[in-house]
Amino acid sequence: MDRLTSLPHAYKLARRDARPEGTIVRLPGGAGFGGEEIAVCAGPCSVESREQLNATAAAVASRGANVLRGGAFKPRTSPYSFQGLGAEALKMLREAADAHGMSVVTEVLDPRDVALVAGHADMLQIGARNMQNFSLLREAGESGKPVLLKRGMSATVDEWLMAAEYLLVAGNPNIVLCERGVRSFDKATRNLLDIAAVPLLHSLTHLPVIVDPSHGTGVAKLVSPMALAALAAGADGLLIEVHPHPPSAASDGQQSLTFEQFEALMSRADVIARAVGRRVPAASLAT
Amino acid sequence: MDRLTSLPHAYKLARRDARPEGTIVRLPGGAGFGGEEIAVCAGPCSVESREQLNATAAAVASRGANVLRGGAFKPRTSPYSFQGLGAEALKMLREAADAHGMSVVTEVLDPRDVALVAGHADMLQIGARNMQNFSLLREAGESGKPVLLKRGMSATVDEWLMAAEYLLVAGNPNIVLCERGVRSFDKATRNLLDIAAVPLLHSLTHLPVIVDPSHGTGVAKLVSPMALAALAAGADGLLIEVHPHPPSAASDGQQSLTFEQFEALMSRADVIARAVGRRVPAASLAT
Amino acid sequence: MDRLTSLPHAYKLARRDARPEGTIVRLPGGAGFGGEEIAVCAGPCSVESREQLNATAAAVASRGANVLRGGAFKPRTSPYSFQGLGAEALKMLREAADAHGMSVVTEVLDPRDVALVAGHADMLQIGARNMQNFSLLREAGESGKPVLLKRGMSATVDEWLMAAEYLLVAGNPNIVLCERGVRSFDKATRNLLDIAAVPLLHSLTHLPVIVDPSHGTGVAKLVSPMALAALAAGADGLLIEVHPHPPSAASDGQQSLTFEQFEALMSRADVIARAVGRRVPAASLAT
Amino acid sequence: MDRLTSLPHAYKLARRDARPEGTIVRLPGGAGFGGEEIAVCAGPCSVESREQLNATAAAVASRGANVLRGGAFKPRTSPYSFQGLGAEALKMLREAADAHGMSVVTEVLDPRDVALVAGHADMLQIGARNMQNFSLLREAGESGKPVLLKRGMSATVDEWLMAAEYLLVAGNPNIVLCERGVRSFDKATRNLLDIAAVPLLHSLTHLPVIVDPSHGTGVAKLVSPMALAALAAGADGLLIEVHPHPPSAASDGQQSLTFEQFEALMSRADVIARAVGRRVPAASLAT
Repeated sequence: MDRLTSLPHAYKLARRDARPEGTIVRLPGGAGFGGEEIAVCAGPCSVESREQLNATAAAVASRGANVLRGGAFKPRTSPYSFQGLGAEALKMLREAADAHGMSVVTEVLDPRDVALVAGHADMLQIGARNMQNFSLLREAGESGKPVLLKRGMSATVDEWLMAAEYLLVAGNPNIVLCERGVRSFDKATRNLLDIAAVPLLHSLTHLPVIVDPSHGTGVAKLVSPMALAALAAGADGLLIEVHPHPPSAASDGQQSLTFEQFEALMSRADVIARAVGRRVPAASLAT
Repeated sequence: MDRLTSLPHAYKLARRDARPEGTIVRLPGGAGFGGEEIAVCAGPCSVESREQLNATAAAVASRGANVLRGGAFKPRTSPYSFQGLGAEALKMLREAADAHGMSVVTEVLDPRDVALVAGHADMLQIGARNMQNFSLLREAGESGKPVLLKRGMSATVDEWLMAAEYLLVAGNPNIVLCERGVRSFDKATRNLLDIAAVPLLHSLTHLPVIVDPSHGTGVAKLVSPMALAALAAGADGLLIEVHPHPPSAASDGQQSLTFEQFEALMSRADVIARAVGRRVPAASLAT
Repeated sequence: MDRLTSLPHAYKLARRDARPEGTIVRLPGGAGFGGEEIAVCAGPCSVESREQLNATAAAVASRGANVLRGGAFKPRTSPYSFQGLGAEALKMLREAADAHGMSVVTEVLDPRDVALVAGHADMLQIGARNMQNFSLLREAGESGKPVLLKRGMSATVDEWLMAAEYLLVAGNPNIVLCERGVRSFDKATRNLLDIAAVPLLHSLTHLPVIVDPSHGTGVAKLVSPMALAALAAGADGLLIEVHPHPPSAASDGQQSLTFEQFEALMSRADVIARAVGRRVPAASLAT
Repeated sequence: MDRLTSLPHAYKLARRDARPEGTIVRLPGGAGFGGEEIAVCAGPCSVESREQLNATAAAVASRGANVLRGGAFKPRTSPYSFQGLGAEALKMLREAADAHGMSVVTEVLDPRDVALVAGHADMLQIGARNMQNFSLLREAGESGKPVLLKRGMSATVDEWLMAAEYLLVAGNPNIVLCERGVRSFDKATRNLLDIAAVPLLHSLTHLPVIVDPSHGTGVAKLVSPMALAALAAGADGLLIEVHPHPPSAASDGQQSLTFEQFEALMSRADVIARAVGRRVPAASLAT
């Protein structure tokens, strides 16, 4: 294994001056990462049922979310926990997103599933546990689909950019980085959300950077203030867990927002976004 | 030594429901922590000379800072580093603050110096290295002066609140907490600034919370975006290092803002503050 | 994603009382993990050539190593670093091990390569970056081969045991855990080797536990004292990087022992092992 | 505040080549740190009563401990926890140590108490929370008494050596470093005991290094294996918490050994010490 030493020169394709004007990643449905309008990805942690997903998609789309998130294949610490609905969930995501004018981002865990997931989703998510799953990075890089690359549990910014480099060198220019908190000694929050990574990355790379305050804090009441903090620091988008009834969620209920909480967040988010020269997407469909 | 177990009940005086309406800490010069107007503490890392300090005070006061910061007694990792100008610096701080309508906050390192520092300053700072210096906490608690309590290098939020409890139980109600980043594995920044501590503390305690993005990042270009993030997350104030010429600073030049950078920050800070229902102090004196 | 809560009950198959007498994992060549005789796994970080590998195997076997380690597929932070010789290296490992009476352990990175690697190796290694690569765990669990499961970069002991549970629930009882250091704030060593994990795991699980002081410190001169510390704490084996000429190694030269250093370590290791009622394997072949 | 940059040259007095033969610190009663015979410091976390202390001193002295430890002034996270018996406990420590042929080490928390503590103890302990309490370091450095300097909660080895430099530059050559674990993300143990710091420090400095596995793990059953590991790695001594009846201890009962456990440890410790060319002190007094 190796240690990075001369890093400013190590990520040849990801580094800022390889594309000084910055990269804008666009999804087919119109969502953009890196432009004036931020991207708002929202939805449940896990896809649990068609009803749950459609209700959530309707609610978040009507408040400005333009990308539907939801787990079909779930990485679970325990083999005895709910592992996701798999391929069936991919179809539900596609249907719910199409019905509400949204794009789909969902996680892929296995290099053998890349083609399957890419057949339904508009954007592939590489999760924190797989940031250095190099086989998966290579397959995702060759898939032709935009990739959302989450930061590893205790990845340095340098290691994260080198993981992005694996995707870029495979010929895929459409990479978005997602800060989701790192391991820390204080268990008051699930992770320690490193908001400073946003402006730091903007100085080091041309790739867009979004923030996931749901995993970044693990506590629903902290999600909105941290989403606003992320936007104030220049984030190019948000990834938010929303559930019709968080206490009964199959996973991550503690950090999921209700529809009402999400609505309140979106109106405050637009004010902050405009204060830094950005804006939240207009609600896609009245419902 | 002990381990905290049932913490919600452990900090009897600091806990939120001991004063649900929240504490507002006011300094003689008018600065307030915890009200609609945020507090802006700014100045050099170390007091180096009367000229350096006056120039900085004039510059930051004219842009809205209402508390002058500056180190007289410096905690230095090496015994061979500059240790501060001591008592002489305390007088300079008082003069410069009075000349520009500001209050003074400065660090006290030794319980035997509390009376000396309290004789010149409006607010005593307890630094990160001394968050659990219980002798110092007791003396500062009994001094009658407001105290700015910085978070320890790797202190949990619970330990930090218990340190505040030492101050409160000594009879001092005027305590302000200052998040300044914690130790992490990634050396791309000096510390990892834990912005989520702001809303978390607001739910746990009635004490005001400010943020120090200078030590929290250690990188000048990250200071402004992180100051804005802190305000968006609800911070009650900022602590910012400003120097007339950062490259020649006796300490912390890498993280100090120039006068121009500070001015640019203040105008952006006011926009963000207003977006969350707060405001930055009006410039105290035209210069 | 999920948070572990009631962990003593969460790892049903890995927990100590599921097999109070402890598990002994035996490889075809005779090496055992968990018995009175410890296992000594040694060899280069990367397989670089037939000559390098044979010379190393001869040297380490003659000093008591009974398992040959060597990377065929290398997980590298940078896509531009040497990625290993792949399938060709697997053959070399098999030949060199057979020639010197050793078993083979080597890392598998991709679930699609499990059958290939299992066709040549006696034991599959799951590396730190893949501890929560659940697809890979499932394939390795079903391979029928013993598995060496390294601790993740910042994995808690609970998460590590849950990863082992994925292997066990797939029907594979022959799992060995390998402590290799965790991320820390001090960059004086590459990782922080958590020797206390050895006795802690011995109380929580029936699975054998070995220690990798090479990755655990990243500094050659610390490898031997930490190997001895691991044995004193009850480790069931060691994993040591050895190279004919460390300064010219394709990877990890800084932490590799020379043949002479390995020989010196083995004689000291036997003394410590006997002091705690264990022993180092006898040298397999006189050379 | 400052960042260390050119560290190998920063600790002029502590660095290895300032005294290549190594420092041996001797206490009046004969205990030595850094020689062939290791130092064994043992006793209760807190001095609770004359009976408790005498019984413990008798027990540990009869098994080879030559330094009595016990807290008179206790640093407690909560102001509502037991704070120690203070000056009264200092007298008890002196009496109990004299009665059993031991030396005394005890913690000093306040620079104003240095003379008082030095009047009773043979060695001053600077605790983890005070490693960078520079006022206290200066007073302790000038006291003429040997100092046991514990590593800070999240101190790098460099910062620790710079704290030792404060003691050395004050004219005190008799400094012993004590590794006691650092903060980590895994709460299965109280701290993460960094055994690799022992050989690392031996290469960087001429000062002796001992290990405290009681605070280093916080779990009684892990104390003995980690004490053995420390000796195997070359530690110059041990600091162990022992209590007549751990469940009723005023502090730290979870990590205290019983007399029987301490006796078992000492006989195993002597075997490991001899395996690395050292030895445990002979029992001072038959009882």
